[in-house]
Amino acid sequence: MNIIEKFIQVREQTEALCNPLETEDYVVQPVTDVSPPKWHLAHTTWFWEQFILVKHLKNYKEFHPDFAFLFNSYYNNMGKRSLRHDRGFMTRPTVAKVYEYRKYVTGAISKLLENDPSDEVLKLAETGINHEQQHQELLAYDIKFILGTQPTFPAIGDFFKLQKETQDQEWISVSEGVYEIGHKGKDFCFDNELPVHKVYSGDFEISNRLVTNAEYLEFMEDGGYDNFNLWHDEGWHFVQDNKIEHPLYWHFIEGEWRTYTFNGLEKINPDLPVSHISMYEAFAFAAWKGRRLPTEFEWEIAAQKFNWGQLWEWTISAYLPYPGFVTEDGALGEYNGKFMINQMVLRGASVVTPKEHERTTYRNFFHASGRWIYSGIRLVKK
Amino acid sequence: MNIIEKFIQVREQTEALCNPLETEDYVVQPVTDVSPPKWHLAHTTWFWEQFILVKHLKNYKEFHPDFAFLFNSYYNNMGKRSLRHDRGFMTRPTVAKVYEYRKYVTGAISKLLENDPSDEVLKLAETGINHEQQHQELLAYDIKFILGTQPTFPAIGDFFKLQKETQDQEWISVSEGVYEIGHKGKDFCFDNELPVHKVYSGDFEISNRLVTNAEYLEFMEDGGYDNFNLWHDEGWHFVQDNKIEHPLYWHFIEGEWRTYTFNGLEKINPDLPVSHISMYEAFAFAAWKGRRLPTEFEWEIAAQKFNWGQLWEWTISAYLPYPGFVTEDGALGEYNGKFMINQMVLRGASVVTPKEHERTTYRNFFHASGRWIYSGIRLVKK
Amino acid sequence: MNIIEKFIQVREQTEALCNPLETEDYVVQPVTDVSPPKWHLAHTTWFWEQFILVKHLKNYKEFHPDFAFLFNSYYNNMGKRSLRHDRGFMTRPTVAKVYEYRKYVTGAISKLLENDPSDEVLKLAETGINHEQQHQELLAYDIKFILGTQPTFPAIGDFFKLQKETQDQEWISVSEGVYEIGHKGKDFCFDNELPVHKVYSGDFEISNRLVTNAEYLEFMEDGGYDNFNLWHDEGWHFVQDNKIEHPLYWHFIEGEWRTYTFNGLEKINPDLPVSHISMYEAFAFAAWKGRRLPTEFEWEIAAQKFNWGQLWEWTISAYLPYPGFVTEDGALGEYNGKFMINQMVLRGASVVTPKEHERTTYRNFFHASGRWIYSGIRLVKK
Amino acid sequence: MNIIEKFIQVREQTEALCNPLETEDYVVQPVTDVSPPKWHLAHTTWFWEQFILVKHLKNYKEFHPDFAFLFNSYYNNMGKRSLRHDRGFMTRPTVAKVYEYRKYVTGAISKLLENDPSDEVLKLAETGINHEQQHQELLAYDIKFILGTQPTFPAIGDFFKLQKETQDQEWISVSEGVYEIGHKGKDFCFDNELPVHKVYSGDFEISNRLVTNAEYLEFMEDGGYDNFNLWHDEGWHFVQDNKIEHPLYWHFIEGEWRTYTFNGLEKINPDLPVSHISMYEAFAFAAWKGRRLPTEFEWEIAAQKFNWGQLWEWTISAYLPYPGFVTEDGALGEYNGKFMINQMVLRGASVVTPKEHERTTYRNFFHASGRWIYSGIRLVKK
Repeated sequence: MNIIEKFIQVREQTEALCNPLETEDYVVQPVTDVSPPKWHLAHTTWFWEQFILVKHLKNYKEFHPDFAFLFNSYYNNMGKRSLRHDRGFMTRPTVAKVYEYRKYVTGAISKLLENDPSDEVLKLAETGINHEQQHQELLAYDIKFILGTQPTFPAIGDFFKLQKETQDQEWISVSEGVYEIGHKGKDFCFDNELPVHKVYSGDFEISNRLVTNAEYLEFMEDGGYDNFNLWHDEGWHFVQDNKIEHPLYWHFIEGEWRTYTFNGLEKINPDLPVSHISMYEAFAFAAWKGRRLPTEFEWEIAAQKFNWGQLWEWTISAYLPYPGFVTEDGALGEYNGKFMINQMVLRGASVVTPKEHERTTYRNFFHASGRWIYSGIRLVKK
Repeated sequence: MNIIEKFIQVREQTEALCNPLETEDYVVQPVTDVSPPKWHLAHTTWFWEQFILVKHLKNYKEFHPDFAFLFNSYYNNMGKRSLRHDRGFMTRPTVAKVYEYRKYVTGAISKLLENDPSDEVLKLAETGINHEQQHQELLAYDIKFILGTQPTFPAIGDFFKLQKETQDQEWISVSEGVYEIGHKGKDFCFDNELPVHKVYSGDFEISNRLVTNAEYLEFMEDGGYDNFNLWHDEGWHFVQDNKIEHPLYWHFIEGEWRTYTFNGLEKINPDLPVSHISMYEAFAFAAWKGRRLPTEFEWEIAAQKFNWGQLWEWTISAYLPYPGFVTEDGALGEYNGKFMINQMVLRGASVVTPKEHERTTYRNFFHASGRWIYSGIRLVKK
Repeated sequence: MNIIEKFIQVREQTEALCNPLETEDYVVQPVTDVSPPKWHLAHTTWFWEQFILVKHLKNYKEFHPDFAFLFNSYYNNMGKRSLRHDRGFMTRPTVAKVYEYRKYVTGAISKLLENDPSDEVLKLAETGINHEQQHQELLAYDIKFILGTQPTFPAIGDFFKLQKETQDQEWISVSEGVYEIGHKGKDFCFDNELPVHKVYSGDFEISNRLVTNAEYLEFMEDGGYDNFNLWHDEGWHFVQDNKIEHPLYWHFIEGEWRTYTFNGLEKINPDLPVSHISMYEAFAFAAWKGRRLPTEFEWEIAAQKFNWGQLWEWTISAYLPYPGFVTEDGALGEYNGKFMINQMVLRGASVVTPKEHERTTYRNFFHASGRWIYSGIRLVKK
Repeated sequence: MNIIEKFIQVREQTEALCNPLETEDYVVQPVTDVSPPKWHLAHTTWFWEQFILVKHLKNYKEFHPDFAFLFNSYYNNMGKRSLRHDRGFMTRPTVAKVYEYRKYVTGAISKLLENDPSDEVLKLAETGINHEQQHQELLAYDIKFILGTQPTFPAIGDFFKLQKETQDQEWISVSEGVYEIGHKGKDFCFDNELPVHKVYSGDFEISNRLVTNAEYLEFMEDGGYDNFNLWHDEGWHFVQDNKIEHPLYWHFIEGEWRTYTFNGLEKINPDLPVSHISMYEAFAFAAWKGRRLPTEFEWEIAAQKFNWGQLWEWTISAYLPYPGFVTEDGALGEYNGKFMINQMVLRGASVVTPKEHERTTYRNFFHASGRWIYSGIRLVKK
């Protein structure tokens, strides 16, 4: 697939994700972390327009003079921007207008890519594709949160379903040694996956599968949420202050646990991997089980030896720069480095992750309290 | 006009108000006080359904089982309700579905009213009409706020325009005496306008017109917002903490003051009455001018002697029960009495007030900090 | 008693109030409304120094250059001031130093008053005395709160005890008419008690005694705190959000209700008047009883006809200026007028009120949520 | 020095630290992180009483039945406890009573240690000594904050002074390799320094000295606090929201920078190491300089090669468990592990650190926003 085909496909894929939505679903921001789908549609387009078209397409006329300001996310170098927590109050431009914006920019980029683009444009296009794919994943999180917190639990379709992890519980042994970590080769990767560097790891054994709902229910029924010995001090305050007693989207209705899926409320399937838990909960579960979470390096070292890809897996590693990490100059330098504090790394991928983002060196990261992400638990034996 | 015609007219009027809106505009709640237009459309319908149809129309089938919960505002006696500050996250039911709900309930009420309705139903219908008219006014406030705080200041039409108050400044004298206050006669009024009772008033002189933008600008330019001697202690903190230095919707752009109207951003017209100011600002302006605000009784006593109706007029009176005020039993008893604390009375009416609500005994009330209401200032000589 | 004797007596009385305290008790500010006793001692002294000595005593040297800033309360006209909610972090000057400050200023004022003081000084001295007496009352509130919220409930002495209201329940009738309200005569009064003006009052009947603990317990046991129909909407949120289910200082211990007094935790005496309740609670109690609270005018009209003085009595009147109220120029003009918003009037006096402040025209005022004041309930028949 | 001598010395040292304080200084808690000195005195005593005396001294009678509750810090396993942010409202027990408590417990522990203590008691005593020493350091931080935020900047003595770092700037080279990290030998260490494990490190060069005030001023004058490119996104919000433009305790007065020391306000000495900066500021400074902060492992590997001990040095390492870290059972298991989230490691020691805590394996940790700690900056070349 050439770059234009890839580009078109990504743009279509973003819109396909939103296809089942009503106009109203595009607009709201129930919590600061969850952006309106309309905003994702516009912001990804803004990225193409501001980083590529404005600078590299001669005589390019911006679609609308206000959009540079309205759909900037956090790129301080790109000028003033609207406030993150106000995204959900922006009713104009309308959804229809944002789709026009997308069409306009998609057309302009296509034209640019057709006419012998420079290496710089090609590189930026690859970044743009990956940026938009990241937002596809966030779109899935955010749409699920917007619909899943409606009192009416709307069902919009039978997609992004989790599968049973078929294997029985086994422990995969990995020997001590100095390993190479980080992205090798010439394919695209994010700057946070570089540089390749060595890490010493001791012996460890890692599970061949994710923790299931059945196991997690056992933890809940054993009073896991009430036993402070299992929790970080901060995690304990988190669950107490927010009255958290089960994974996000779970509801105890008429004597049984149900969970919100894109298909509406469904009974908990005990064999599926538990999902939508914070790192605090993953940690407490591991403590209760007498196990621990892997480091991100252990995960990367062992990843060839097990199946992964249903859910992002919390690690015990903080999101920090690799030795020798270099920030790019300019606005794109704001991409990753400035978030390397007070966040935890998740490794793997999830059912809502674009296939191109599934690689063993990929570093996803969220605050330990994140629950609306497609997160799960893989254990390591102490 | 008979009760059915009145009913139909009110229902249509509510929808006409929303006609210029895009679907997106119906959904958001930028601050807790400002409800989504969709919510007003549904809540006024809920009122008809729950207070009348469910109790008085045989075999009535509710439009949707969830709506009783979703669109209750604060009537604790009517069962559980969703939280006020979450109204803006409710994407479902959609706007289209809410219009269906309206049509369904309008039809059912029409049928009920056509078939020899009982006196109780007629009385409830009158309350329902007045309730919906109150929400029409709130709708105008809320729509203006939703659009007027968009970074793009959308223009939706040339309506609800203020007029110049044509008169020159004169002072109308009123003599001391014991006056009767409150609603007389058999027309509808709210319980807070009753009972009729006597009030002693001293001599006073009241202005024949509202304060203008020109006069208010003079106050601003004289440092009114920076002179704490003019303000209530609480008002001083209010303007300082919120960095308030001019009426709501005003913007200083390219060397001149503009204000948001439904027609977009327009230059300030110095002859129009100043609007969208809090009671704190009205009080400080009066102090600066060496005048004061009227009490609600002075206003009612003098109202026959001047023109009013462009803007609600802040009074120096707290919203309290009249002597002998009786709360109705049941849910409708929650209508007014429970708000009689820490609110100030406004008298008169505004350009967005339904004509049927224009009477000299009407008591509008808001917290002293309210600025999104159509408020203005009339002065009294000390 | 001449002015110097009065002055000395007031200064001594303030210090006597603090006599049972430990140094530590002087320092803390458990909530913003409750100032450290040390602060009261210093601020009342600051008032004498800044309003009188600095302006009227030739060659007066301020005790310490920082104190003008440190102990200003809210007088914006007197220059910069420290923040109210930071009073409890100020460890220096020490308590001992503040007592030195008091001695120094007391001496200087005495000298000034001995030497043929001007009328202006005499007038200011009277204000200073009344100001300090107001703080004596606040001191009692604040000391009780500081000690009464210690987990250890320290007992410091057997003072400020409430007495049984000996009378049986009777209803005193007052006939309709136009009455004069406000302070007459030449004795000192605060500006908010003026001017004398007429008020029309209808017939009413007022209780000859305060509501007792026994009656209030009945309200509690009848579910008064759980019945939203009895409450203001704002009061309902207040008790729900703060989990309030009984008067301040009450604790249910080993099967019975106790309350904190300066003598430590004591069993509730059913015959004593209920105290330390907010206006919201007073209002809800009255609603439950089928009665109502008096207006401040009714209270003043009827006050000659019943005993009062144990507890301040909540009224249904908002704290607003009397017709023709005039604010003094300069800093003393900040004294009362700027608080005339969103507060309710209490009438009467309490066991901690200096005798000189007991008069039927006195207007005490607090936000409806105030509970640490010595407040009680007197009912009016509807 | 035997265990009893060590114990006595530590107890005396804690009290010596508080010797220059006034009673008032012992009581307040200006921010949640800063505990009242009285609380430190009592809590360290509580630790000895609850973990040793209650369990290991026959017939031991607790000093006061309330203290087990009042002075528990966060040990959920030790029963109910008072709330952290309420420590500053606790006026009773008085400071004098807390000193009595200390004397009582010091006596009892001495007796216990004199009479052939069990190995378990000896081990607990060592933990108690180290625990109290940690609080000595916190006491120094907290006393400085309490005094340094007084508007009057009290001077209490000429101690804990920083020295000029005499060396010229040099870069110490460390070669790549697998290094052993963690505490070896049988001396006391905290559980977070264990187990000893291997870490791979690449080549790096580390500075021989700390960053000076002169260098930091250059950063400030070059607009370091206004250049978002230098900051973590979270750090940028931190300095913007809190209006931070210089290190804690710095004040620009009459044209020059001064800083609060225990000796009062003093002019900034450009040659001293910059102190009281957050990790965000350390990070931004390093970015501005084109350098970076060390990892905690680099620091430990290189520490033999430079002088350290004036200020704790921020690292780029998150505070996480070492591979194989084991939490102790019971309440002492709450000691360290439960804080291993969202905190950054500092290495070294400071002028307020007890000598026994100065070792290259010691892991101090605070949230990246911590500024009241004695923190400094050491750079690494990229």
